[in-house]
Amino acid sequence: MSTLTTEPSSSATDAQTYFRCFAGCEGKHSIYDVIYTCPTCGSLLEVYHEREPLKARNPYQWQQLVDSRASTTKWPYGSGVWAMREWVVPSLRDENIVSMCEGNTNLFWAERLGRQLGVPDLWIKLCGNSHTGSFKDLGMTVLVSVVKQMMSMEGNPVKAVACASTGDTSAALAAYAAYAGIPAVIFLPAGKVSTAQLIQPVSNGAHVLALDTDFDGCMKIVQEVTNDQSIYLANSMNSLRIEGQKTVGIEIVKQFDWEVPDWIIIPVGNLGNISALHKGFKLMMDLGLINKMPRLVAAQAAKADPFYQSYKNGFKDKISVTAGETLANAIRIGDPVSYHKAVKAVQETDGVVEQATEAELAEAAAEADLTGMYCCPHTGVALAVLKKLVKSGQIKSNERAIVISTAHGLKFTDFKVRYHESKLDDIKSELANPPAYVSADANAVKDEIAKRLGL
Amino acid sequence: MSTLTTEPSSSATDAQTYFRCFAGCEGKHSIYDVIYTCPTCGSLLEVYHEREPLKARNPYQWQQLVDSRASTTKWPYGSGVWAMREWVVPSLRDENIVSMCEGNTNLFWAERLGRQLGVPDLWIKLCGNSHTGSFKDLGMTVLVSVVKQMMSMEGNPVKAVACASTGDTSAALAAYAAYAGIPAVIFLPAGKVSTAQLIQPVSNGAHVLALDTDFDGCMKIVQEVTNDQSIYLANSMNSLRIEGQKTVGIEIVKQFDWEVPDWIIIPVGNLGNISALHKGFKLMMDLGLINKMPRLVAAQAAKADPFYQSYKNGFKDKISVTAGETLANAIRIGDPVSYHKAVKAVQETDGVVEQATEAELAEAAAEADLTGMYCCPHTGVALAVLKKLVKSGQIKSNERAIVISTAHGLKFTDFKVRYHESKLDDIKSELANPPAYVSADANAVKDEIAKRLGL
Repeated sequence: MSTLTTEPSSSATDAQTYFRCFAGCEGKHSIYDVIYTCPTCGSLLEVYHEREPLKARNPYQWQQLVDSRASTTKWPYGSGVWAMREWVVPSLRDENIVSMCEGNTNLFWAERLGRQLGVPDLWIKLCGNSHTGSFKDLGMTVLVSVVKQMMSMEGNPVKAVACASTGDTSAALAAYAAYAGIPAVIFLPAGKVSTAQLIQPVSNGAHVLALDTDFDGCMKIVQEVTNDQSIYLANSMNSLRIEGQKTVGIEIVKQFDWEVPDWIIIPVGNLGNISALHKGFKLMMDLGLINKMPRLVAAQAAKADPFYQSYKNGFKDKISVTAGETLANAIRIGDPVSYHKAVKAVQETDGVVEQATEAELAEAAAEADLTGMYCCPHTGVALAVLKKLVKSGQIKSNERAIVISTAHGLKFTDFKVRYHESKLDDIKSELANPPAYVSADANAVKDEIAKRLGL
Repeated sequence: MSTLTTEPSSSATDAQTYFRCFAGCEGKHSIYDVIYTCPTCGSLLEVYHEREPLKARNPYQWQQLVDSRASTTKWPYGSGVWAMREWVVPSLRDENIVSMCEGNTNLFWAERLGRQLGVPDLWIKLCGNSHTGSFKDLGMTVLVSVVKQMMSMEGNPVKAVACASTGDTSAALAAYAAYAGIPAVIFLPAGKVSTAQLIQPVSNGAHVLALDTDFDGCMKIVQEVTNDQSIYLANSMNSLRIEGQKTVGIEIVKQFDWEVPDWIIIPVGNLGNISALHKGFKLMMDLGLINKMPRLVAAQAAKADPFYQSYKNGFKDKISVTAGETLANAIRIGDPVSYHKAVKAVQETDGVVEQATEAELAEAAAEADLTGMYCCPHTGVALAVLKKLVKSGQIKSNERAIVISTAHGLKFTDFKVRYHESKLDDIKSELANPPAYVSADANAVKDEIAKRLGL
């Protein structure tokens, strides 16, 4: 383990929170070490929090503490993530916390949509109403804060953070790094991505390097370049981000005054997010804050459904696929990194894995938009899966269901325009609502309105 | 006044909150009447709250009340707007409040940018981190709620809401109307606007009518069509929206534990938003919650600067201009509706009006992005004006300054892409950060990174 330069109290908490092998190998690793996988078996790591010290507070005291912090002006506790500081990374010093007030997003009461779908107690957790427009902020505040503390330590090798990503991950990493003043490097295959897709990291001053190779070639070079530990990798194998992402489940429960919903449906690709949800609920169970688990539903795009196939197979084997093109491009993953964590999440919560076709996800998103939302295609996947489970009777009409909306629809203008212009391949756009052209005559306009409103 | 169907207590509060003529004509009008301007003189109306009944609570009690509500799970008080319900529209019944948890947006501590600009106590109020991505949500929750209550009243003529807008106003109106299940009609001149610009109201199911005329012709027809009161107009002359928008100033003070900042800088076009800010501060002064006013700065784009010209003229006359094309298109207004309200706002707060050129606004936005923000061009106008006032010594280095960011940068992808591709007309893009192409060779990549990070 690294020699920590923190004060004694922090060293104590660091001994209580550490990386360990998810597959069960022996050994503890400091979260301030540059390490991504188990040195013994190569499995993913997880941040583990010793339970005994956390039990010094009783469940009610924990609830009171978190309630008294979140959304207040007490820095950094006003953040939805740092309101739960002791459960995230207790050894971080105040001056190293890189927070842009993430979390505390609206739990949208989908009153009209719920009635339409036959599940009136329906809520949408709008994680995209955030600084960079996606739930990735929750994990990045943790990762970048840990890196900032690393960089203050003696003998620290880290000079920058990096990831190979073209989507929400690079946007969140670049924004948090910019806020902290830490250089960020984004690797991507040249010619595959437009400036528009990269405009958030470009604007936030990240070093965007387009490499003359494909994605696999890119990853190979990234591993070579980061070998000397000078650049800290923020890709999805990094388990620190899970610590921030797990707060979303805890926050949902908090928003219901610590009542656990029956179902939580989340769109999944690399499977980190469902693993994180489960980890948060597990912690609450262990500390006695809740006495039941919600049933977790992993929603996949049919074009990229390895986890669905594994589920259908009874999780006998991990199945990998070549992911096809899907509108839900952030979950276009054929070989998910957090597979084993996610299997545990589904198995321990009596969960379900279901999939949605391109047409189903597009129509579900459009239907929800008509009731005031503005859904990204991934939220469309989750809503389409919700509809299937309601229809099949698995989700009952008196149960409380939460759909996690992972990004803001503003990131997917093209998807929405193509839907309403009926230009999506093989999709009918049943709910297309294009502008109507009317002649500039008051009576013609009145007639058109009367016809539309049924007056 | 309309006969109100509310219970006696609400009638009482309705008598304390009403429309009156901003220019001072006699008469009170119910806020549930379909009325937009003074029937005597044609001036704008304002919602007035009788002060005496509000003084039944002392300042500390008001602060406690608002603090105990905002961001909590107490519906509808968790909303930043409805936490201040008594100051907004007290006579609204719970079942008519159409809220999507607006407000409570992050007051971003611009630590790095503030140091760079020589005003370290700098904060950015990120109003764009919201449901529809702009501050317009604050006003629309109020307007649509009032309409919902109107529609429940006997003899109500209103069947739909409408506006003539192609930007944030139509997006917010359509979303709130969709949430409430009230039809929304959006009027716009045909051929001037793409589906992409209208994609939010299109997605939210608004009736988007493109009329075969220009904007003036459009407005004329809108007035004819809405003459019979069957369609309620949500355009900027409607003073209900101000009631929601004024909460942003109160919320800023609340976020500083009820301490008033020295300066608030806001980008302005039609001048409703600065009028709203002033109205909120005036209320707090009258109720004794604060004992000084912040100095309000109206920031204009030089291409559309009638208010700046009037200010330079000592507000002797209202000056109108033909607004030129500006990147800050939401404030491209040549003849501002809320001129007289805004003059009062500037005069009563020892305020300032300043302008910024296209190059200044673009560079200021890019500079802020490098410190973790993601600024829309209007926020760029406000930041550029801030820089000028710091440089001229009007804003001093020990003063606290707040910049109001009116929309999320995600609504302005094209602006950002063109900036970083150095394709904005007559703008140098001094801070352009385009992706770099590097050959797929670990050493080449290492060299590039070393060069960039100065290793």
